[in-house]
Amino acid sequence: MRTALLPGTFSPPTLGHVDLISRAAALFDKLIIGVSENTGKEPSVFSVDERVAMLKLIAHDLPNVEVKAFGGLIVDCCQKCNIPFLVRGIRGEQDIPFETQMALANKQLCGVETVFILSDPRYAHMSSSLVREIAGYGRRLHGFVPGIMEDSVYMRIASKQAAHH
Amino acid sequence: MRTALLPGTFSPPTLGHVDLISRAAALFDKLIIGVSENTGKEPSVFSVDERVAMLKLIAHDLPNVEVKAFGGLIVDCCQKCNIPFLVRGIRGEQDIPFETQMALANKQLCGVETVFILSDPRYAHMSSSLVREIAGYGRRLHGFVPGIMEDSVYMRIASKQAAHH
Amino acid sequence: MRTALLPGTFSPPTLGHVDLISRAAALFDKLIIGVSENTGKEPSVFSVDERVAMLKLIAHDLPNVEVKAFGGLIVDCCQKCNIPFLVRGIRGEQDIPFETQMALANKQLCGVETVFILSDPRYAHMSSSLVREIAGYGRRLHGFVPGIMEDSVYMRIASKQAAHH
Amino acid sequence: MRTALLPGTFSPPTLGHVDLISRAAALFDKLIIGVSENTGKEPSVFSVDERVAMLKLIAHDLPNVEVKAFGGLIVDCCQKCNIPFLVRGIRGEQDIPFETQMALANKQLCGVETVFILSDPRYAHMSSSLVREIAGYGRRLHGFVPGIMEDSVYMRIASKQAAHH
Amino acid sequence: MRTALLPGTFSPPTLGHVDLISRAAALFDKLIIGVSENTGKEPSVFSVDERVAMLKLIAHDLPNVEVKAFGGLIVDCCQKCNIPFLVRGIRGEQDIPFETQMALANKQLCGVETVFILSDPRYAHMSSSLVREIAGYGRRLHGFVPGIMEDSVYMRIASKQAAHH
Amino acid sequence: MRTALLPGTFSPPTLGHVDLISRAAALFDKLIIGVSENTGKEPSVFSVDERVAMLKLIAHDLPNVEVKAFGGLIVDCCQKCNIPFLVRGIRGEQDIPFETQMALANKQLCGVETVFILSDPRYAHMSSSLVREIAGYGRRLHGFVPGIMEDSVYMRIASKQAAHH
Repeated sequence: MRTALLPGTFSPPTLGHVDLISRAAALFDKLIIGVSENTGKEPSVFSVDERVAMLKLIAHDLPNVEVKAFGGLIVDCCQKCNIPFLVRGIRGEQDIPFETQMALANKQLCGVETVFILSDPRYAHMSSSLVREIAGYGRRLHGFVPGIMEDSVYMRIASKQAAHH
Repeated sequence: MRTALLPGTFSPPTLGHVDLISRAAALFDKLIIGVSENTGKEPSVFSVDERVAMLKLIAHDLPNVEVKAFGGLIVDCCQKCNIPFLVRGIRGEQDIPFETQMALANKQLCGVETVFILSDPRYAHMSSSLVREIAGYGRRLHGFVPGIMEDSVYMRIASKQAAHH
Repeated sequence: MRTALLPGTFSPPTLGHVDLISRAAALFDKLIIGVSENTGKEPSVFSVDERVAMLKLIAHDLPNVEVKAFGGLIVDCCQKCNIPFLVRGIRGEQDIPFETQMALANKQLCGVETVFILSDPRYAHMSSSLVREIAGYGRRLHGFVPGIMEDSVYMRIASKQAAHH
Repeated sequence: MRTALLPGTFSPPTLGHVDLISRAAALFDKLIIGVSENTGKEPSVFSVDERVAMLKLIAHDLPNVEVKAFGGLIVDCCQKCNIPFLVRGIRGEQDIPFETQMALANKQLCGVETVFILSDPRYAHMSSSLVREIAGYGRRLHGFVPGIMEDSVYMRIASKQAAHH
Repeated sequence: MRTALLPGTFSPPTLGHVDLISRAAALFDKLIIGVSENTGKEPSVFSVDERVAMLKLIAHDLPNVEVKAFGGLIVDCCQKCNIPFLVRGIRGEQDIPFETQMALANKQLCGVETVFILSDPRYAHMSSSLVREIAGYGRRLHGFVPGIMEDSVYMRIASKQAAHH
Repeated sequence: MRTALLPGTFSPPTLGHVDLISRAAALFDKLIIGVSENTGKEPSVFSVDERVAMLKLIAHDLPNVEVKAFGGLIVDCCQKCNIPFLVRGIRGEQDIPFETQMALANKQLCGVETVFILSDPRYAHMSSSLVREIAGYGRRLHGFVPGIMEDSVYMRIASKQAAHH
């Protein structure tokens, strides 16, 4: 049985993530979506619990997908859960340098193998930070995030934004 | 009549911007230079009014160019002013991923079309942040910004820098 | 009145070319599609007359578009017809080095300015050579070339292929 | 059971191919190495039978790997053998444009999904054409091809080269 | 006699830096490693004195190498010490845009010439920030930094990290 | 004493080559311009003797530069003449993949170290093949090749071209 980890911050998940998850799930016997507790320097708009909940909703119909929060390094998560594969989406040439660095470092640290899928071109321009910027300026998110969470994601970002002013 | 928006922060305008503006102005019936009020996380060295004033000076001889400040998203500015085209300079391969993301997002949000011009190779290494760094360490800006504003831009950056210490 | 040249070999035109033509036509008062007589080292599958005819069909509904064959350098065509602008599609970072070289050489040779549009991501993987390869191995061209010329393009490539064996 | 096709010309196989094959074999239940009969315009130094034989030697210890010759398009091979996955090695940013084009075209033509592995940096500079060039000028191939076939590959290329003069 | 400056922050030095230093030292009569006092926005984990000390240890056996701290711009350091060459390592395409910008700006400011060496592929995925991240999450640094400073670098980063919590 | 080889076909030399040669000559005690006898598949417009003669003219004022023809692999030339360094110009990101492959292969084959200089942006769009194309269509070469050989290079290419028809 092959298990892979799909790590990310998903803050929030976009339609690009939805596409990536369903395609990655078809590649492995079991896919664990690893939601990083750490979203970088700024305090996250969405708590790790909220992000896990959104991803569970998205992966609802995929029986071999599990969603888990993790802290620390990706390799710690792989070793703790005994996961030999990582799966990552690449949107284009621009992602190769960072992904190469991470794949080689992760292999050196614990032997994990990284597998890549190309983003669907219809979603390759989407990113969580773009979604936050769009909603932060009061634009609706139709066509950027899954329909079922369009309103709640919008509200959440807009209210955080308002709190800053 | 075709109108295009050339958006940017121009903090400060460089010789690269000067070249881009005159070439973009030749492409459209009317060119609006959109000066973004938002220059990122750090407080800007130059106020939006100062940046608008510098660009007006630069575009002084171009009768079909107008300079305007705008807040929020670029697409809001396009919709409010009914502008169907964006024009952007690209300095090389490195600019394509970000420009692609923005062009596709802007098209998805309001149908605006983005048109690109290649930077003149003599200016492709210039950027506003490089200018700020050079002047911040006490170097004159000859050959980086228009001669007419060389001294004032230098003074402004140097005095801000001094205020930090 | 602004006139631009959209040069290419179009052997055959793809859905990517169709998208590019209609968007370029919106940018200029007049768009001339310049069909290069020279398609490289190999004898072309489609004669220059056939390619001109296909492009006229594609541009049928665009009143400001004209289709012309040309030999020699692009800059000769620009100078002979007094065209100050070139328009080119770019599919991603990979096109920048060649396009930069051509844009700078063309500017140096006759002062013509090159303007770029990003390919629609749905068509960015299409190219005339890919179409020739697919049909050459007996695959239909649905979704690669305009529906109206799907059959004739397929037949033409398949018969040429057969003649080689 | 998941089956993947690893297509290529392998003319000849390099140490980079050896690394790729063993890593791809670990990813799938069954891996079929598809040796393309067509090696491009020039007559191949190695016949398809020779190339299949070399790959069988390389994959000798990998029980889930099969080696097959195929003609025509990769997608024909996938459909005939009912293979839903392709696996490809990428050596760096430079491979992304071509691989993206092929992955999208293959998906459009028959729904096959392409999965990527990064080349080991120790082998990323190797290619079959480099090997042919090195041996063609009389250099031994130590560290470029598997030890077991170093001599025979060298002899083969050197004798072909001699036949040209 | 040719003298070159190898500038950097080296916070901390990695095995990639060690390789670069010994290869750069072979290229020039004298190599000065310039340790920038400024390590960016965040307070540095390692003081400039500590970084200079580590580099002296690394360059111990290279008689033509000198280690110096410098503040301000690289070009100020070049002019003050009368150094006509800069030497920089490049890890891949991703480094070209920034390095081009800096090389052209430095040439414009004081005529200094920049020379590039390619990173050894075994070390191309290493960077000081990756080292800080790995150790910051409690992982040992074997194979990332020189053996002789593995423990001390680890301790330093781990204790800084602890102080943040 | 440090000696470097600057290899190329120089068919013909361009202003970009002129710039590269003078800058490379300043980097080493001795610079050998290695003119490859082999210019690829097509018969060369310029014989190796003509190319050597043109380069000798260009390097006339550089006392530490020597011009030599060589056949075979670059590493054979380095070993025969005991040259430990190669110097190459890079025009941008696009040159990195090929240059990396060659630098690593050359290091693996004979330990030679490759050093890179960035092309001057004013010449980065020039190449020998572009020059041949421009003159082949009857355009003068002002600003592409050294003034002293503008006419002879033009005549040579134009007459070859005529001989084809």
